[in-house]
Amino acid sequence: MENEKRYESYVLIHNIAKRHNVGTLARSCTAFGVSELILVGRRDFNAFGSHGSTSHLNFRHFHSLSLAKSFLKERDCDICGVEITDDAVAVNQHPFKRSTAFLLGNEGTGLSAKECEICDFFVYIPQYGCGTASLNVTVAASIVLHHFGVWAGFSERTREGNKFVVAERPTKQERKNYCAETTESIVEERRLKRENTSNGFFDESVKDDSSSNLLDGLFDS
Amino acid sequence: MENEKRYESYVLIHNIAKRHNVGTLARSCTAFGVSELILVGRRDFNAFGSHGSTSHLNFRHFHSLSLAKSFLKERDCDICGVEITDDAVAVNQHPFKRSTAFLLGNEGTGLSAKECEICDFFVYIPQYGCGTASLNVTVAASIVLHHFGVWAGFSERTREGNKFVVAERPTKQERKNYCAETTESIVEERRLKRENTSNGFFDESVKDDSSSNLLDGLFDS
Repeated sequence: MENEKRYESYVLIHNIAKRHNVGTLARSCTAFGVSELILVGRRDFNAFGSHGSTSHLNFRHFHSLSLAKSFLKERDCDICGVEITDDAVAVNQHPFKRSTAFLLGNEGTGLSAKECEICDFFVYIPQYGCGTASLNVTVAASIVLHHFGVWAGFSERTREGNKFVVAERPTKQERKNYCAETTESIVEERRLKRENTSNGFFDESVKDDSSSNLLDGLFDS
Repeated sequence: MENEKRYESYVLIHNIAKRHNVGTLARSCTAFGVSELILVGRRDFNAFGSHGSTSHLNFRHFHSLSLAKSFLKERDCDICGVEITDDAVAVNQHPFKRSTAFLLGNEGTGLSAKECEICDFFVYIPQYGCGTASLNVTVAASIVLHHFGVWAGFSERTREGNKFVVAERPTKQERKNYCAETTESIVEERRLKRENTSNGFFDESVKDDSSSNLLDGLFDS
């Protein structure tokens, strides 16, 4: 079924900051047919808000941006930064050519120079009126993934009544430990993490040499 | 500036359930040039996550759906339900004709029969692949509002460097009490609300006669 796809989409996140967004992001990735959610650097997150969709989504992890880039280039994939740069194209103009991985910046700071370096091109989401300066990262990702699916002609999920039909879960994947599946396990995980706060937020030290604003991100309202 | 707009967009929410989503929703409304966020029935919410954008957005409140409908019809506005109905049109087909108010359902339950009744037409967001059955409500709203802005030809906000330019705040609006402005006040509000949990979640009794699943919504993961 998935093999019939001519193009694939990927989501790439470098040193993920706002953990509570990952669940909702995973849900959108699943809804828009994303092949893999690729975490670079930091890889611990909280799947709260995913409504179980993490179990339908494949995760992959790399320690550095260059390793992620190599992997994607082997798959003939463009890397598209979602960022308001001077040469960014409005996403509704569908400036896509092939399978594409979307690199998302952290809210507030956007993509770093190092992150921009691995991008082949950039898209931005037009904004109107006055008042806000950056969209929620999951909202931005969702709009971009929606447009890619339209451009790539992904086949639509069957609708039944007021719901899309949810398929049988795929076979187990290797990185099971990053996918909390039940509300109970997520709540328990949250509780444990809260208790461990004083020992530091991170499950493992980040080997990557990039500077990060992880703690800022975690406490950013 | 706003007067040059040929069409206007509105967001309509009936008995808002997940309070923590309103801040992000308000942020998207602001980003996509929404004229007013209209709350029907319940109107207390938490603006956490809005990054201050609620102060740029106009809010309006009605006690019933029929009052909201009358108001919108006086403004020659269509009411568009965001829901996967049999006759719903894919939002990227832009089935718009005039100023439009988007009625959003609660996650999980979607729009009720009563809510569907006031809608002139429906749009849905195509989904691909397998796994999830409903998008986060702010994600759904954002995609729809983005498409409406593209269709209506809203003029784009000026970009400067990697940010959109945030305009001066508009003059004070009457419903100031629904717009928490500073992080401090939001944090304080959250603290007070948590303490009041045992006394019930609601700041005022809902006069509207519709059934509601507010508590379900609040605890829905």
